[in-house]
Amino acid sequence: MKTHWEARFAHRTKKIMSSVIREILKFTQQPDIISFAGGLPAPDVFPIKEFTIASSKVLDEQGPLALQYSTTEGYNPLRDWVVADMAKQGLKIERENVIFTNGSQQGLDLIGKIFLNRGDKIIVEAPTYLGALQAWNSYGVEYVQVETDENGIIPEEFEKALRYGIKLAYILPSFQNPTGKTIPQDRRQKILEIADKHGIPIIEDDPYGQLRYEGEHIPSILCMDDKFRNPGGDVYDGNVIYLSTFSKLLAPGIRLAWTIGPKEVIQKLVYAKQGTDLHTSTLIQMVAYETAKDGFLEKHIEMIKKTYSERRQVMLDSLEEHFPACTSWTKPEGGLFLWVTLPEQINAEDLLQVAIEKKVAFVPGSPFYPNDGGKNTLRLNFSVSNPDEIKEGVKRLAEAIKASL
Amino acid sequence: MKTHWEARFAHRTKKIMSSVIREILKFTQQPDIISFAGGLPAPDVFPIKEFTIASSKVLDEQGPLALQYSTTEGYNPLRDWVVADMAKQGLKIERENVIFTNGSQQGLDLIGKIFLNRGDKIIVEAPTYLGALQAWNSYGVEYVQVETDENGIIPEEFEKALRYGIKLAYILPSFQNPTGKTIPQDRRQKILEIADKHGIPIIEDDPYGQLRYEGEHIPSILCMDDKFRNPGGDVYDGNVIYLSTFSKLLAPGIRLAWTIGPKEVIQKLVYAKQGTDLHTSTLIQMVAYETAKDGFLEKHIEMIKKTYSERRQVMLDSLEEHFPACTSWTKPEGGLFLWVTLPEQINAEDLLQVAIEKKVAFVPGSPFYPNDGGKNTLRLNFSVSNPDEIKEGVKRLAEAIKASL
Repeated sequence: MKTHWEARFAHRTKKIMSSVIREILKFTQQPDIISFAGGLPAPDVFPIKEFTIASSKVLDEQGPLALQYSTTEGYNPLRDWVVADMAKQGLKIERENVIFTNGSQQGLDLIGKIFLNRGDKIIVEAPTYLGALQAWNSYGVEYVQVETDENGIIPEEFEKALRYGIKLAYILPSFQNPTGKTIPQDRRQKILEIADKHGIPIIEDDPYGQLRYEGEHIPSILCMDDKFRNPGGDVYDGNVIYLSTFSKLLAPGIRLAWTIGPKEVIQKLVYAKQGTDLHTSTLIQMVAYETAKDGFLEKHIEMIKKTYSERRQVMLDSLEEHFPACTSWTKPEGGLFLWVTLPEQINAEDLLQVAIEKKVAFVPGSPFYPNDGGKNTLRLNFSVSNPDEIKEGVKRLAEAIKASL
Repeated sequence: MKTHWEARFAHRTKKIMSSVIREILKFTQQPDIISFAGGLPAPDVFPIKEFTIASSKVLDEQGPLALQYSTTEGYNPLRDWVVADMAKQGLKIERENVIFTNGSQQGLDLIGKIFLNRGDKIIVEAPTYLGALQAWNSYGVEYVQVETDENGIIPEEFEKALRYGIKLAYILPSFQNPTGKTIPQDRRQKILEIADKHGIPIIEDDPYGQLRYEGEHIPSILCMDDKFRNPGGDVYDGNVIYLSTFSKLLAPGIRLAWTIGPKEVIQKLVYAKQGTDLHTSTLIQMVAYETAKDGFLEKHIEMIKKTYSERRQVMLDSLEEHFPACTSWTKPEGGLFLWVTLPEQINAEDLLQVAIEKKVAFVPGSPFYPNDGGKNTLRLNFSVSNPDEIKEGVKRLAEAIKASL
């Protein structure tokens, strides 16, 4: 006999898949497992004291405002903070170029909401960020995977992919999730020129751009696009929609991020957000502003960089020490992740089973390829475990690999 | 010459309309205007002190948890609080029957995300809640308006409307936004039996159910559906998806609401929310729980009811005193709104222009009808203005009406 769900609801609902990563994470939350699987920032770098002071101040001085409905586009002092922050990078924008969202995930979803129809094609790096795929899958889109090398997406392959009738191109140029790779400046320039020539908007996702541990800062594609198209220095009106977030700089649990783009695009995102959740928590926006302002964020980022930089080095050293010669991995200059390539014959999903028995976890690489690929790859997070855990975890993982050879 | 927006973006994006109400509100935020237009709770009933204490306690005792990523379905102590709250109303549910969202607006959007395809038909009351229309318009649905009388939606008309091939029925049974009308118990019973017979899920939106100022409590359609289908008292597995919220009971600026439904429906909503924004702010959920628990919310609701009940009475008395005999209005037993019907010849949108000149604002009724109707109706909010403002505002509005006759 049919259940009530089957009789009444099942045929009425659409197919929506759960995130593969979320399902995997369920198995890795036992306390004795060392997990390199999550994309979590380390809780020991959260500015808890500053949040406490900011919350009390906001509620004490502006309680009625903090608890009332507010505008969909976001808290204006925060939007102005973004304007000032981008001015330091040489980009001229105004408040109307910025919308605040519940994490970048909502920015991605709203982009889907205003742009994407069933069957639309999106260019993505192979591999790419899983959260973007999850946001856009519900709009019924198709993905065109573009080949990457050690410097990220290959411009010639990018231009070839544009023949497929593309709606948008999605790129994470700095310390990419999942690979940790960074696209060099000259390659960014080629990509934005190709996109400009073909009239394809670029979605630039930049959650880690400020977390660089070595090497020189590279301008965002947004800033480069502006310089290329707009030598007069007018307010930005180019080809790039840019996402950044407080998740890795302050705390992810507050769910606060922003999207920058041409004013008309932002206005459409605002309309879409109205219907989605009216606005992001006023209280959270005001507390985040109170915490971040007056230079605290800059100092705090320095502290985060010191912590993560050390952990990255510990992981790279441990990999060097323990991993067999038939494996290779990226050496990210920033961010939270690195990417391991195993010998062809090892399937990373099978390896995960062995690893979990040895009390260590990671995310297999294939879910990061929307179409196909990456069977012998995996992603390691180096931000959330402390140095001793990283050493022990890499040792255990090396044993799991050797046992699978 | 085409602008960059026109050349690059305009043809790529979908049509999304801004909320009519939001646009109107822009003209009514001048400080000398008495606005009955918003749907805002009064800031003087916000529990600011309790939020301040709760924020400090949560950050002090559980800071790392409050600022970290958390599960999509919501903070478990809050979900359990909903379970306990519904048990008091005789409904057996479990944690898996509950998801927390960024306000009910997100609940409505997620329902759209799992159920609605272009061309799907939804039954709504005429008039109905504008936010629901805004959430679902982006899915390309059509609305079947069902006629209402002083007791809300008419069961015979509801059953007739089911002939049109309906996906869902959307009903606000208590102190409806916009009309303030309440569906009596016997009529609720008829509606749920008709929906059961035809196998149509009911979306029950209940943001004001606990704000009753006179008359007897009427069970929710959710609870009645359970009693009707499930005399054995098993865990709820019926026909109703029920939305409630902290917006009117604690504060709207925190954006925190919940949806109750059969477990499989909630699971689908969780998957959809993963792709939409991962989860609702951990900090906000923990602070709201800390504020609401241990009986504070019950006491606080009594205080809100006292305040709003008085304001409602002041508005009803003022309408009686000043409005011309050719107008009529609802006498809501709870909630935040009442509904005025003007003589046929007065168009409420024209009246708004006259009213704004006289420094008083309201929302014209026609946007609450997705298809057509309500030209000579308007919605008045009585919760946000104080008694003196209400008296003065109603007087001004009466003058505007008399000037339009």
